[in-house]
Amino acid sequence: MDRELARQWLTTALDEARAGLAEGGVPIGAALYGPDGVLLGRGHNRRVQDGDPSLHAETAAFRAAGRQRSYRGTTMVTTLSPCWYCSGLVRQFGISRVVVGEAETFRGGHDWLAQHGVEVIVLDDPACVALMRDFIAAHPALWHEDIGEEA
Amino acid sequence: MDRELARQWLTTALDEARAGLAEGGVPIGAALYGPDGVLLGRGHNRRVQDGDPSLHAETAAFRAAGRQRSYRGTTMVTTLSPCWYCSGLVRQFGISRVVVGEAETFRGGHDWLAQHGVEVIVLDDPACVALMRDFIAAHPALWHEDIGEEA
Repeated sequence: MDRELARQWLTTALDEARAGLAEGGVPIGAALYGPDGVLLGRGHNRRVQDGDPSLHAETAAFRAAGRQRSYRGTTMVTTLSPCWYCSGLVRQFGISRVVVGEAETFRGGHDWLAQHGVEVIVLDDPACVALMRDFIAAHPALWHEDIGEEA
Repeated sequence: MDRELARQWLTTALDEARAGLAEGGVPIGAALYGPDGVLLGRGHNRRVQDGDPSLHAETAAFRAAGRQRSYRGTTMVTTLSPCWYCSGLVRQFGISRVVVGEAETFRGGHDWLAQHGVEVIVLDDPACVALMRDFIAAHPALWHEDIGEEA
């Protein structure tokens, strides 16, 4: 896909990440776009806000999109490289494309997705990097909890 | 782990699957047990009931367990082989063990999990097989929707 459009869609995910930060949460946001470019769902990590470890940004956006008969042609846009949980979501449901804001502060399963036919675009966005770098420095334990890593 | 204990824990997941069926939902259930054998959370697929595609049985049980600092030593018990989404959950959070009721009606990512160090026990439970076989025969479109497969 066109990188300019990818950057435009990333702003939706980044707005979600910033909303999460403002709520005291893990600042990762995501948005699911349809094949026609219509926004199907958007969301952000809600571990802190809802005490719900199952709501990563991507699963929150997926949930917000509701039941869909097919994910062919859809694009998951996320501020951060998707972890195995969220990469598994993309693969299982046949989401066609993943736009990754950055993969510098955390590297998830996006290479695995590319190997399995998903179109992956990594944007190396400085705003996404700064958001996570500051968050990880300020709240290392919360970050490790969110990705299931022991201290 | 001991297969007798695994079978005992499977009854919790099977009860959840049957509860889901009684609600008109996809009959897959799961339970997350702690290292000490304490039940941390249980749940079932809620696609139909809540219109929520993000709640597979395993993610529902994981969610019900709430925030945990570590999943080391925990066991995810599920009536059906975990799809990529749920397999990704297990891998990302370092859940140590997966007990699978059956992998005959659907084969997900449990071999991949075993390759990545997760202890996997497949029980080939006839009650789990019958539940899914009957459900798939009666509601093929709903089943395909739940695993993101096109007709």
